[in-house]
Amino acid sequence: MAVSVLTQKKNAPTGNPVDKLLAATADDMAKVNSLILSRAESHVDMVPELARYLIESGGKRLRPMLTVAAALLFGKGKGNEVNFAAAVEFMHNATLLHDDVVDESDMRRGKPAARMVWGNKASILVGDFLLGQAFMMMVETGDIQALGVLSAASAVMAEGEVFQLAKTGDLTTTEADYAEVIRAKTAVLFKAACEVGAMSGGADAAGRAALAQYGLELGNAFQLVDDALDYGGQSGALGKNVGDDLREGKMTLPVILALAEGSEAERAIIAGALGKVDASELEVSQVVAIFNRHNTLARTLEKARAHADAAVEALAGLPDSEMKTLLGEVVLHSVSRAS
Amino acid sequence: MAVSVLTQKKNAPTGNPVDKLLAATADDMAKVNSLILSRAESHVDMVPELARYLIESGGKRLRPMLTVAAALLFGKGKGNEVNFAAAVEFMHNATLLHDDVVDESDMRRGKPAARMVWGNKASILVGDFLLGQAFMMMVETGDIQALGVLSAASAVMAEGEVFQLAKTGDLTTTEADYAEVIRAKTAVLFKAACEVGAMSGGADAAGRAALAQYGLELGNAFQLVDDALDYGGQSGALGKNVGDDLREGKMTLPVILALAEGSEAERAIIAGALGKVDASELEVSQVVAIFNRHNTLARTLEKARAHADAAVEALAGLPDSEMKTLLGEVVLHSVSRAS
Repeated sequence: MAVSVLTQKKNAPTGNPVDKLLAATADDMAKVNSLILSRAESHVDMVPELARYLIESGGKRLRPMLTVAAALLFGKGKGNEVNFAAAVEFMHNATLLHDDVVDESDMRRGKPAARMVWGNKASILVGDFLLGQAFMMMVETGDIQALGVLSAASAVMAEGEVFQLAKTGDLTTTEADYAEVIRAKTAVLFKAACEVGAMSGGADAAGRAALAQYGLELGNAFQLVDDALDYGGQSGALGKNVGDDLREGKMTLPVILALAEGSEAERAIIAGALGKVDASELEVSQVVAIFNRHNTLARTLEKARAHADAAVEALAGLPDSEMKTLLGEVVLHSVSRAS
Repeated sequence: MAVSVLTQKKNAPTGNPVDKLLAATADDMAKVNSLILSRAESHVDMVPELARYLIESGGKRLRPMLTVAAALLFGKGKGNEVNFAAAVEFMHNATLLHDDVVDESDMRRGKPAARMVWGNKASILVGDFLLGQAFMMMVETGDIQALGVLSAASAVMAEGEVFQLAKTGDLTTTEADYAEVIRAKTAVLFKAACEVGAMSGGADAAGRAALAQYGLELGNAFQLVDDALDYGGQSGALGKNVGDDLREGKMTLPVILALAEGSEAERAIIAGALGKVDASELEVSQVVAIFNRHNTLARTLEKARAHADAAVEALAGLPDSEMKTLLGEVVLHSVSRAS
């Protein structure tokens, strides 16, 4: 029988499901946040300076919240979820540090990327440090099965990033390639975050599989929305500018669909702007106009909604509880941010 | 009672101790090498291409050999040493990939660095992949204590690299700072390699501590020799040019000692060349002349020999065996390469 945390809260907020999730996981997340800060410490000053700059830059900490929520959903927590949640957030932040170097990104979460302040070298090495610390926190739980889930995720994420890099600017990239990239680089960490949370919460095999599937579908939906927002979101809202993916030559779904269905002339316009670091706003808007003619942004969001529905569906076999309802609402909210 | 492997070999080679170690560990190293190749595989072509280019570029695989040798020294092997050895080599290679990006190195092991062929981005990401695979191989052993040793090493190594970066070109760097850098960036992995080997071989607490100490001292000696060779070795022998550390602004012991004892004029010459990417051969030779006046290369090697002696001493309490003798010879050989 699942235990609901929400029922224990006197003043559960209404409205935004992410805020409700934050409230429902507040006690454990306070421990997670303090563990995150203490594990970013080092006698080498540059390490905590850089790590905290990123960690405290206003990320939502959605992944560690999901780990905690998944543990609470099953309610037989061994307390390992705090370590796993912090480890998941460190893995995510290590990836962000390396990604910003790889993508040559200037901004992250609305302020200069760490590499613009401390340089690429420090960003690479502090990323490595966070990854090492993540593994230490996992090891401390003694849960070798969960370690397997998270270490596999770590390798797959890097593989996904390499695949994305290999496909950069490649006009022959297929929808299947794209699905593989977002699964590996994004969805697998959401999956692992939810799965180890469930394991830590004492889920049986079916419960663990349900949360793994939920995380995978949520992660896919999340990345699809991100990739649509990159062309349609308001500048600044995501801390990055519209068209960044285009300038970086990233083969995301809106591009792939437009290339597949566009006219010769349209393909030429897209190809001309893809990977052009200094593509102008006009060039970007011409590409977005092509997307709109072929409805590729709307169809990307449609696909995101299908994954979101699948995420909710993955939880269907679990006993009803307020936490289960909330996890469903979080998914739907995460796709609604782009509509 | 320690079991000697060498006594089981009909044709143990004489001469170079590293060759003898290779022969003594040949059976297990064949498994390690095949595991290394299979774990560098990926459906993303760029991953095995880049990884194999580095892995097969003629490194001596000293670290994994030490893991296997440490396990054989105790002789009650659980077979975990093959996974640990491959994991240690992956951790090492991940570090090399990231280091070459950070140091902007063009050459590695006598051929163009991977980043010169596949670029910095792929080098960063494939390094991350190797690190993830290393953890997966460790997890497969189910030995959570050994995982603790290796994951701690991973974090400390990155911390050491950041410390080195922070100290780049810093004329106030002390001998103690330097000792901390080489311990963290180099010696800790040698220590972990030997320690998990001993654990896998069924060592008791004293045996494990002895091998850990042996590895730490060997690693310190190894890095001190490297840092002396950077100024005194023949160009090409190490696959890099004399004075690279100077041009990169690395505060190694020969520099630190010379700055501490040199005249105002000598300090000015060193400071002028430190971190100067395009420092000429003449400038490097002027710095080396100052080193020679203050005997700083010889004293660096003396310090290496003291660590080598301490490594041999660390094994003193263990039962005599041919493997123990060989491990002692390997240390002395590793410092003799610079004399």
